[in-house]
Amino acid sequence: MTAPIALLTDFGHVDPYVGIMKAVMHGISPGSTFIDLSHEVPAQGVRVGGLLLDAAVPYLPQGTVSLVVVDPGVGTARRPLAAEAGGLYFVGPDNGVLSLALSRFEAVRVVELTSEAHRLKRPSHTFHGRDLFSPAAAHLAVGVSLSDLGPPVTDWVTIDWPRPERSANGWEGEVLHIDHFGNAVTNIDGALAPLGSSVEVSENTRVPVCLAYGDVASGAPVALVGSTGRLEVSVNGGNAAAAFGLVVGSTLRVRLDDRSEPTR
Amino acid sequence: MTAPIALLTDFGHVDPYVGIMKAVMHGISPGSTFIDLSHEVPAQGVRVGGLLLDAAVPYLPQGTVSLVVVDPGVGTARRPLAAEAGGLYFVGPDNGVLSLALSRFEAVRVVELTSEAHRLKRPSHTFHGRDLFSPAAAHLAVGVSLSDLGPPVTDWVTIDWPRPERSANGWEGEVLHIDHFGNAVTNIDGALAPLGSSVEVSENTRVPVCLAYGDVASGAPVALVGSTGRLEVSVNGGNAAAAFGLVVGSTLRVRLDDRSEPTR
Amino acid sequence: MTAPIALLTDFGHVDPYVGIMKAVMHGISPGSTFIDLSHEVPAQGVRVGGLLLDAAVPYLPQGTVSLVVVDPGVGTARRPLAAEAGGLYFVGPDNGVLSLALSRFEAVRVVELTSEAHRLKRPSHTFHGRDLFSPAAAHLAVGVSLSDLGPPVTDWVTIDWPRPERSANGWEGEVLHIDHFGNAVTNIDGALAPLGSSVEVSENTRVPVCLAYGDVASGAPVALVGSTGRLEVSVNGGNAAAAFGLVVGSTLRVRLDDRSEPTR
Repeated sequence: MTAPIALLTDFGHVDPYVGIMKAVMHGISPGSTFIDLSHEVPAQGVRVGGLLLDAAVPYLPQGTVSLVVVDPGVGTARRPLAAEAGGLYFVGPDNGVLSLALSRFEAVRVVELTSEAHRLKRPSHTFHGRDLFSPAAAHLAVGVSLSDLGPPVTDWVTIDWPRPERSANGWEGEVLHIDHFGNAVTNIDGALAPLGSSVEVSENTRVPVCLAYGDVASGAPVALVGSTGRLEVSVNGGNAAAAFGLVVGSTLRVRLDDRSEPTR
Repeated sequence: MTAPIALLTDFGHVDPYVGIMKAVMHGISPGSTFIDLSHEVPAQGVRVGGLLLDAAVPYLPQGTVSLVVVDPGVGTARRPLAAEAGGLYFVGPDNGVLSLALSRFEAVRVVELTSEAHRLKRPSHTFHGRDLFSPAAAHLAVGVSLSDLGPPVTDWVTIDWPRPERSANGWEGEVLHIDHFGNAVTNIDGALAPLGSSVEVSENTRVPVCLAYGDVASGAPVALVGSTGRLEVSVNGGNAAAAFGLVVGSTLRVRLDDRSEPTR
Repeated sequence: MTAPIALLTDFGHVDPYVGIMKAVMHGISPGSTFIDLSHEVPAQGVRVGGLLLDAAVPYLPQGTVSLVVVDPGVGTARRPLAAEAGGLYFVGPDNGVLSLALSRFEAVRVVELTSEAHRLKRPSHTFHGRDLFSPAAAHLAVGVSLSDLGPPVTDWVTIDWPRPERSANGWEGEVLHIDHFGNAVTNIDGALAPLGSSVEVSENTRVPVCLAYGDVASGAPVALVGSTGRLEVSVNGGNAAAAFGLVVGSTLRVRLDDRSEPTR
């Protein structure tokens, strides 16, 4: 049984770039199922790409190979990498896009993709996703050893993520991502915002922490523990980012001190 | 042979939500082929979702499991359901999104998804697509019995769809959907608009009923029986919704009385 | 082992048209892996569709069936075709969309899809992708002979593509495609623009030909051999089409005479 291959890129859906990578991989690992995580990472959005990958990791079947191509430095000296951690495999550029996902694991093995036997011949300088990363991912999917792909790397690039900070009456964090529904996903662990606390989205607006979107009236704001365990701010049946002007980087405050106050 | 799984959601293509559901299902039913019907249902668009599902039903192979997650009430009291009808399986929330497809069949079995053995542990309140519906769909795909997933339900939610009405000189109906090409798909069965009749899109504009888009000149309007058997209004090589200001709910009239009149 | 099926259409991602075609094909060739090349070809964009297909051809595994549905003439007299060339199969309308890909091969066999045994019963006049092309593609994927699908065709429609022209100091070509990143892909073979030459994007602006996007500073323009072997103009980390007002059809000039001049 060959392993499934999960794909995450900033290639969009107009050009055949993703399909070409799948064609290359199908030629090496015809039994692999492809699982598209996203191809709409903002162009060259290494941070967002890392965040979206991380959200999927807990649900990937053992052995899954994640092929991550958000690669503004393609063709330059940045190293192409493959990694193994917790029985999962990852392939992508050494620009930090893999680092948040890898930070979940204690034991991580990383190699640089140097093996010429496991890439296309005469690789281009502009599409390593096709020429280097896809062949490496497909070879891992059919059981090739990580160590066959190249020598170990221990100093891979990591991205620093902002941590929530303790404030006088709760926690202060920031928006990491606006999702398709306009939900503002924060860097605050859901456990820090218990039921009955509120989230300050601006000086005069507090949003109650509830369990489900539908716990407030249609069109009303709500904060809750989102599907990845992070605190998020939503509008039931609406778009919280639009309603409150929230963007990536906006500050949000969890208020633990006013559990009985009216909320907006 | 495991059954294919068809997916229909309002999750869009930016976030990894669909990929996460496929990862969960691949862990349970690794042999299933995934068939994406649409992930661009308008957010919380239960009616549109139901319409798009219904359009696909006649073409699904026997045994296909359709996983439908358009679920504004996630985490509230609305029930999670699975159904069997005509050898096809359906999984989704009890908000009516499945009802138009199910109304095609005389015998329908529906259960409420209560079995803890067939869901993820500690399901969230915000992503039942991942935690409840995907596991149920994958278990059905590998042959688990519908009755193993929970107790029977007979009072599932249904959506009323507008029916075309007889008028003095034909039929009056409305636009149900604007498709990618700007075709306005109506609730009027194609059989009610024979060749030679016309469709009134506004007080002074009648569009001839033809067989194919290319039966009129490039840029000219045409009405025809669309791919789902419904009457639709199109512009050959253009966008009928934009040309005539048609939106979901717009009224259209089939005129049977002027088969020899000039059309516009 | 059944062959993979690559799909290229202008159907977009909102409607279930692509999923319906996959459902039809899965019923005939349940072992086929589907490889989506693009479903965002501009509506009725026969030329762009042909270009995107051509870009994928060198990477398709032997035996792959490419299903191409960009078909403004559906339901009219234009012929439905299937072709074999170089061990690859192609299915689509006779409007030229296949012709650039087929022109790569010396020996090409083409048939008209007339066999009623290899299509759906009572095909519509509006969705041959579902009723004619998908069944033909799936039958080819499971090993049905090309000649079983219909009689030979030798006069299929071809599209003329502009060729670059020799100029006093280099080559003059044009933009064929703007990709997702805003890269302007030209009709000039990369071999005609050696390192050190430049590309004139307007009267006063020349862009240096380099190896990789990252060979210039972030935000700076660069010309290079893109992933399909064609010369393209890019902005490192930016959008060249927006920066220089480039559109499909814009003229670009390779300058071989100023290899030591300052570039912009």
